[in-house]
Amino acid sequence: MREATLKCLRDAFCSESMSHVRYLIFAGHAQDESFPVLSRLFRAFALAKYLRASELYYLSRDMLGNPAVNSNSYFIFERTMDNLVKARDMEINSVKEVFEPYHALAMAESEPAAAHCLEKSAVISRVIANMIDNVVPKLRHTDEEPDIGDIFICSICGFIAIDRAPEACPCCNSSAENYILVV
Amino acid sequence: MREATLKCLRDAFCSESMSHVRYLIFAGHAQDESFPVLSRLFRAFALAKYLRASELYYLSRDMLGNPAVNSNSYFIFERTMDNLVKARDMEINSVKEVFEPYHALAMAESEPAAAHCLEKSAVISRVIANMIDNVVPKLRHTDEEPDIGDIFICSICGFIAIDRAPEACPCCNSSAENYILVV
Repeated sequence: MREATLKCLRDAFCSESMSHVRYLIFAGHAQDESFPVLSRLFRAFALAKYLRASELYYLSRDMLGNPAVNSNSYFIFERTMDNLVKARDMEINSVKEVFEPYHALAMAESEPAAAHCLEKSAVISRVIANMIDNVVPKLRHTDEEPDIGDIFICSICGFIAIDRAPEACPCCNSSAENYILVV
Repeated sequence: MREATLKCLRDAFCSESMSHVRYLIFAGHAQDESFPVLSRLFRAFALAKYLRASELYYLSRDMLGNPAVNSNSYFIFERTMDNLVKARDMEINSVKEVFEPYHALAMAESEPAAAHCLEKSAVISRVIANMIDNVVPKLRHTDEEPDIGDIFICSICGFIAIDRAPEACPCCNSSAENYILVV
C-alpha cells in the first residue's frame, strides 16, 4: 500500500478508536443520569465506531515497528443532552476534516480498498449525525427520553438502522442476517 | 491544569483507546482460532485499557475545541500466540516511552492527580506484561490453552487479579466489592 494512504488509514483508526471510547463514556454517563434509551443509542454509536476502527486496523496490519499516529479529539463530558448535541458536531467534523479528504487521497493514490473503507466511515458518521438530528428536537420538547424504537447495527460495517434491519445493508450491501439488535 | 501535563493526559488517552480496540480485535481473533481462554484474557486487557482511557478522559475534560493528539500504535494482527507475545512488548514499551516520562513531567509540573493517573496506567501495563509472561511458557510447552483460572478486574482502575479479588486493590486501594469477574 502507498505510504500516504496507509498513514490516513492509521490516523482514521486512531480517530475511530477514541470515538468508540468516548461513546462508551457517554453511554455510562447517560445511564447515571437516568437516560437508558440514550445510553443504548450511545452504545450503538460505540459499537459502530469499534467496527469502523477494526476494519481500518485490518487494512493497516502487518506493519513492522511502532508508527506515529496523529488525530484530533474532543474532550467533552457534560450533561447527556449536551454530549449528544456535541457528538453531532464531532461526526460532521470527522467527515469534513478526516474521512472525505483521506478518501480523496486514497483515490488519488489508486488504493480502492482503502478508499472504500474510509468512505464507509464517512457514511457511518453521517448516519450518526442524522440520528442525533432526529432525536434532539424530541428531547428538547418533552424533556423526557424519546421512544426511538429498536436499534439494529450491521456487524460488518457498523451501519445503524431503526426498527428493522434492511434487507441489504445500504452501506456494505451485506444481508439482514448480519444485523444485530443493540441491547 | 498546566498545558504540558494536559497534553500528556490527552496523548495517553489516545494510546489507551487504541490499545483497548486492539485487544478487542485480538479477543475476537482468539475466539476464531478456538482459544476461548486467551480470548477472555484479551477481553480483560481490553476492559482494563478502557478503564484507563476513561480516567484519563475525565481528567482531560472540559476543554474547548478539538485538540491534536499524538501517539504511536502497533498494527499487529497475527496468530493469537504471536499477538500475545507482541502485546507484552507493547505494554513494556508504553511504560518506558509513554507513562513513565509523562508521569515525570506531571510531577515536575506539580500536577499530582494527573501524575497519579499516569502512574496507574504504568502499573496496569506492567500487570498485563507479567500476566503474559506467566501464560506464554505454558502455551509453548503444551500447544494447548493454559488453565489461567478466574480473571477479576478492578472496575475503578483496571487492575487485574487471578483467582480472587484482593481485599484492597494494590493499584487504587478500593475494596474487593469493586472487582468484577471477566466472563
